[in-house]
Amino acid sequence: MSKIALKGSAMLNPVPAVLITSRKDGFVNVFTAAWVGTICTKPPMVSVSIRPERLSYEMIKSTGQFTINLPGSKLVRALDFCGVRSGRDVDKIEKFNLTLEDGIQIDAPSIAECPVALECSVTEILPLGSHHMFIAEVVQVKVEETLVDGNGRIRFDKADLVCYSHGEYFPLKNVPLGKFGYSVQKKKSKGRIK
Amino acid sequence: MSKIALKGSAMLNPVPAVLITSRKDGFVNVFTAAWVGTICTKPPMVSVSIRPERLSYEMIKSTGQFTINLPGSKLVRALDFCGVRSGRDVDKIEKFNLTLEDGIQIDAPSIAECPVALECSVTEILPLGSHHMFIAEVVQVKVEETLVDGNGRIRFDKADLVCYSHGEYFPLKNVPLGKFGYSVQKKKSKGRIK
Repeated sequence: MSKIALKGSAMLNPVPAVLITSRKDGFVNVFTAAWVGTICTKPPMVSVSIRPERLSYEMIKSTGQFTINLPGSKLVRALDFCGVRSGRDVDKIEKFNLTLEDGIQIDAPSIAECPVALECSVTEILPLGSHHMFIAEVVQVKVEETLVDGNGRIRFDKADLVCYSHGEYFPLKNVPLGKFGYSVQKKKSKGRIK
Repeated sequence: MSKIALKGSAMLNPVPAVLITSRKDGFVNVFTAAWVGTICTKPPMVSVSIRPERLSYEMIKSTGQFTINLPGSKLVRALDFCGVRSGRDVDKIEKFNLTLEDGIQIDAPSIAECPVALECSVTEILPLGSHHMFIAEVVQVKVEETLVDGNGRIRFDKADLVCYSHGEYFPLKNVPLGKFGYSVQKKKSKGRIK
C-alpha cells in the first residue's frame, strides 16, 4: 500500500452527526453539528464547535445551554437541512414538524423524534479559527424507553443512528464487529488470542 | 414516544474509533481513542482526550506530536486490544505486526495498514477530569492512493472505516443516506422539497 500526501485538513472520519437545540427569548433553534465529540468521562463532557456567524452561536453563547439530539436515519433530510439553512431565514422546528420536549436540567428543549438527548451546560468557549469550541458538561441524558432492554441496557444498536463521513451521511451496519475488551476476553473464545 | 431520564454520561454516539501513534526516545506506542473529534476547519484542528495514567499521555505531552490513524474493519481486533492493554506491558506494534511509516511533518510514524493518517501538532492541553484534552493542528494528511478516484476525490466510502457506539465497534453501511446539502438541491430532484 502506498499513500499520497495532502495538506492538513479535517479528515477525521466518521464523526457524529447530531441536531443541537437551544432556546433564547422563547425562540427555539436547531442546527446540525458534526464537529462534536466526547472529551471527558468523569465528569461527562462534550465539545461542540460552532462558526461565530451562526445564529445558534449567539444563542448558546448567551444562554450557556444546549441539547444534543441523536437522530435516527429517518431524520436524515432534516439533519441535512438544519446544517445548510439558518434559523434567521426559516423556522426549522416548524418546517420539519418536530416535537419539542422541555429540558429537565436546562432551559433548552429536546426533539422528541430523536431517541437520545444530552442536556449540556457550557463551561468554556475557546476561539480557534473558523470555529469556536464550546466545552460543556453533560448534566442530563434522556433515552427513548423502547431502547432500554429488560436488563436496563441501552440498545444503541437498535437506534439506527447516523454518522458523517467526508461529506456524506451513513447509517451503521446492524451487527457489531466486537465489544469493547473482546480481544482480551478468554471466556467463550475458541482458542488462544493470536 | 416517551423518554427515561438518566444522569449525565458520555452518551454521544457514534464516535470515531482511531489508532493514535507517537514516538519518544525511539519507542513507538499506539493506543485506541474514541474521545476524539474535529474542532475547527480553518485551521484544521482536532481534539484527543487521554487519561493521564496512560503511557501515550506522557509521550505526547513530552513530544507534542501524534498521528491519528483511521483503521478499516479488518483491524478491529488490534483496535480493541490497543485500547485495553498498555505499551508499558506489551509492544503493540510488534504484536499485531503493524508496519510503520515515518511522519512527513512530525516525528511520529503512521500505520501503513490504516488507509488514512492525520499528522497532528499539539497546541494546548486542557485538564478536564478523568481525561485531559489535547488540542492539535492537523499539519499533514496521508491517504492510501487506491482510495483516490480519477477525479481526485477521496472515496472514504470505500475505506471500510469503523465507529464506536456505546461499547461496541460498528462498520458503516456501504450506501450513504445522502450527501451534504442534498436536502436543498433542486437539480435532479423529483419535485419540490417538502
